[in-house]
Amino acid sequence: MQEIERLIQLLARLPGLGPRSARRAALHLIKKPDTLMEPLARAIGDAAAAIRTCSSCGSIDTTDPCSICTNPERDKSQLCIVEEVADLWAIERTGSFPGCYHVLGGRLSALDGIGPEDLNIASLVARVSAEGIKEVILATNLTVDGQTTAHYITERLEPTGVDVTRLAHGVPVGGELDYLDDGTLTAALRARRSL
Amino acid sequence: MQEIERLIQLLARLPGLGPRSARRAALHLIKKPDTLMEPLARAIGDAAAAIRTCSSCGSIDTTDPCSICTNPERDKSQLCIVEEVADLWAIERTGSFPGCYHVLGGRLSALDGIGPEDLNIASLVARVSAEGIKEVILATNLTVDGQTTAHYITERLEPTGVDVTRLAHGVPVGGELDYLDDGTLTAALRARRSL
Repeated sequence: MQEIERLIQLLARLPGLGPRSARRAALHLIKKPDTLMEPLARAIGDAAAAIRTCSSCGSIDTTDPCSICTNPERDKSQLCIVEEVADLWAIERTGSFPGCYHVLGGRLSALDGIGPEDLNIASLVARVSAEGIKEVILATNLTVDGQTTAHYITERLEPTGVDVTRLAHGVPVGGELDYLDDGTLTAALRARRSL
Repeated sequence: MQEIERLIQLLARLPGLGPRSARRAALHLIKKPDTLMEPLARAIGDAAAAIRTCSSCGSIDTTDPCSICTNPERDKSQLCIVEEVADLWAIERTGSFPGCYHVLGGRLSALDGIGPEDLNIASLVARVSAEGIKEVILATNLTVDGQTTAHYITERLEPTGVDVTRLAHGVPVGGELDYLDDGTLTAALRARRSL
């Protein structure tokens, strides 16, 4: 059973799976050796072998530079700053951003001991200085750490003279005021626009 | 990105992971290529190669017959009938059952078109007739399908004259009456015991 125990232990380290659901997942795999288990082992191996980190933006892809950085139809003058690749994917799914990205690889956090040198901030400043970027859009999370990171980046980019913007804060589309937290409602009120 | 898409698709087929959490899991894997991704690919491959279904009880193990069936300290005269290997593991974790098991591999379900021939019921009847089993403990789930299955097995085992018992139903240990469903409370009342 050693092989099964080891499989369960590793599955339990995936986000969203605890020890119990890892057991269920392992059994599910074992029940489908040909249609799921072998393909998944191969897919993980293939992905591990194929994936590169883009040396320009810090995203992941099978090529370096990534397919966004090398796409001639993307607007090279707009740079959207995100904490993680997952955030980049979330924005890409909207299909509404024509520019390029810069992935920080995390956020500043005094608690976790993550400082500016642990994030891709120096490379961001270098890109902004060298690549003729006109606008930097801060899309860090609306957490304390995310906002601290945004603030720090704004200061670091000040000497370059680039336009720095951030995502709008407000009521989510389809959101009901009654269920909204006070902070969001306050931000939405402050940022009210005339019709 | 084809390799990443395929990885996400396969991860999303695990129970407990939807498309969103599969994406998170894939990114988590990609962030830890050496400590998680490669080991997981290897662990799945190792488990796929090592795992056998026990030809006697239907459980899974790296040996056939399994380590429970071959353990000389297990009571061969008691057979606990469970739907799935996960149920067997749950009972094993209690450490309170000294006997052996028989895994049905599912439950009777008219809705899903699962009949007696799809489950390990014929092999159960054969075991009870051949192996000198004194007691069969039905530990199928307390669902309609699970109870139908238990009922069907009771009828099939009647000619063998073996004792058929089932798990007690009642208030869970630590359970509060106020939060208990009516069915369990009714079952607990009916099965009340004198102190």
